[in-house]
Amino acid sequence: MNEVTRADIMAAVRRIGPYVRRTPVIDLEVGAFGVDARLTLKLELLQHGGSFKARGAFNRVLAAAVPPAGVIAASGGNHAIAVAHAARRLGYRAEIFVPVVCPPVKVELLRHLGAEVTQFGAVYAEAFAACQARAEITGALLVHAYNQPEVVAGQGMVGWEFAVQSSDLDTVLVAVGGGGLIAGVAAWYAGAARVIGVEPERSPALTRALEAGEPVDVTVGGVAVDSLGASRAGDLAFAIARRWVDRMVLVPDEHIIAAQRALWETARVAAEPGGATALAAVLAGAYQPAPDERVGILVCGGNVDPRQLA
Amino acid sequence: MNEVTRADIMAAVRRIGPYVRRTPVIDLEVGAFGVDARLTLKLELLQHGGSFKARGAFNRVLAAAVPPAGVIAASGGNHAIAVAHAARRLGYRAEIFVPVVCPPVKVELLRHLGAEVTQFGAVYAEAFAACQARAEITGALLVHAYNQPEVVAGQGMVGWEFAVQSSDLDTVLVAVGGGGLIAGVAAWYAGAARVIGVEPERSPALTRALEAGEPVDVTVGGVAVDSLGASRAGDLAFAIARRWVDRMVLVPDEHIIAAQRALWETARVAAEPGGATALAAVLAGAYQPAPDERVGILVCGGNVDPRQLA
Repeated sequence: MNEVTRADIMAAVRRIGPYVRRTPVIDLEVGAFGVDARLTLKLELLQHGGSFKARGAFNRVLAAAVPPAGVIAASGGNHAIAVAHAARRLGYRAEIFVPVVCPPVKVELLRHLGAEVTQFGAVYAEAFAACQARAEITGALLVHAYNQPEVVAGQGMVGWEFAVQSSDLDTVLVAVGGGGLIAGVAAWYAGAARVIGVEPERSPALTRALEAGEPVDVTVGGVAVDSLGASRAGDLAFAIARRWVDRMVLVPDEHIIAAQRALWETARVAAEPGGATALAAVLAGAYQPAPDERVGILVCGGNVDPRQLA
Repeated sequence: MNEVTRADIMAAVRRIGPYVRRTPVIDLEVGAFGVDARLTLKLELLQHGGSFKARGAFNRVLAAAVPPAGVIAASGGNHAIAVAHAARRLGYRAEIFVPVVCPPVKVELLRHLGAEVTQFGAVYAEAFAACQARAEITGALLVHAYNQPEVVAGQGMVGWEFAVQSSDLDTVLVAVGGGGLIAGVAAWYAGAARVIGVEPERSPALTRALEAGEPVDVTVGGVAVDSLGASRAGDLAFAIARRWVDRMVLVPDEHIIAAQRALWETARVAAEPGGATALAAVLAGAYQPAPDERVGILVCGGNVDPRQLA
């Protein structure tokens, strides 16, 4: 039953619609970033909490009966911010575990949102283990960063919304961490556009899972580790990606940084490294669109210390 | 004949359409920024060159016969960047005069665009005097920062585009320097929505012009002086504003800074002070929308050193 359907995504659209922003798209001129294709950016970094994660978090929390202990989550940062935001908006307690790679800018934001924050572990997987143990004690509702059907269906709203806004895309590029976003987006498109996953070379969980025929543990690191550094792809993402993701590409850190800089310089879009990773695939040549191909690019996160853009 | 008509603006839309970006809008939730109204941001800072100025610059240059000496302009920075961008795009030389208040981030961008840059004078008005003298020598096409009909008509495309994207706005808030943007926007709406001008308390050229019954010299300063620091409103802007601008409001520097910060924190929009000034009117209470009023806010410039947002 590793399936999230278009009906699940439409249910999410109705459930979370009042709580999330319809994020804008911008069509860039042919030649932007030195590319001949027609690029359309979806500025999902303007979402509540600075990333797409608000969609899945709201969908999981609104679909559940939340106990008095509230909600609990582990995250490299963005999912935590989304859960804290949703909890505050809906009046629940939020307890959050983040690894030490979570940047200070995200930890500050979490505290500002009123969440109880524990920094534990080197990377996301370790923070998640601590979170899971704690959830068993408190009974709080666990909101997984990517591997729950309601979370994937919520992220799928990004695919639905993009398809409504830009109905003629040939291809959609999506950065991948644990796979929640690409699973939702690919489940929505279901072949109606080519969905390409983009991972940092140093955090290749879904690439390796598809090669191995099942999710496998990988070592994670690199400039986008806080947002894309899942040590193992989710079962849900794996199953959906195997069916609906055209292919995965890997990009080196220097191209992620170059894409982050290009977004700022060309369009005044302030993305974090993970948010610039989908574009990096085009800049790096890891994905080479045909001339006039219409390529949608999800700019999925903007929780960056702006000094990094200077 | 101080008039720019809707027909002039439609001619600009057709002329410059292939050269400028359709900038996106985002509807914010009721309660965003602590305001009960329904705010819609138009993210004109994603335009080429980081501000709306590309529209007027392209319209002026494309409507003219450009001599071998190319184009020449004076500007606090954003108009200069737009003229340099348009000149490079269309294959003309560009000579630019900016005052010393032009921030380093803008001067660097100008040089990067291949313009010949002279820094002269304390504020825009002095740079313009030098530019005018130089234009008489070289015969280059002068592209005025705000007081030419083609420039106003080009900026008017922002009004047309916003009206297409968000057809039910009650009110549109526009930051004002020399008045080119508000003149174009107000000439487009022509009463179909309330157009409110917002000036920094320390750069009140259009407010004082409307009080005096004619453009008058004012002292300019403050955090947005580089983009909004015109010492005297344009004749064109004055004539159009008298007819079509509902009213002007003034905002203090601290509210401009607060609006800049709020845009970053709430929506990951990296505006420069002048780009945040229209929103500042709402945050400061200088313009108090009714509950449920639909208020459009032009975020008109993003040429900021990102370190300022940290």
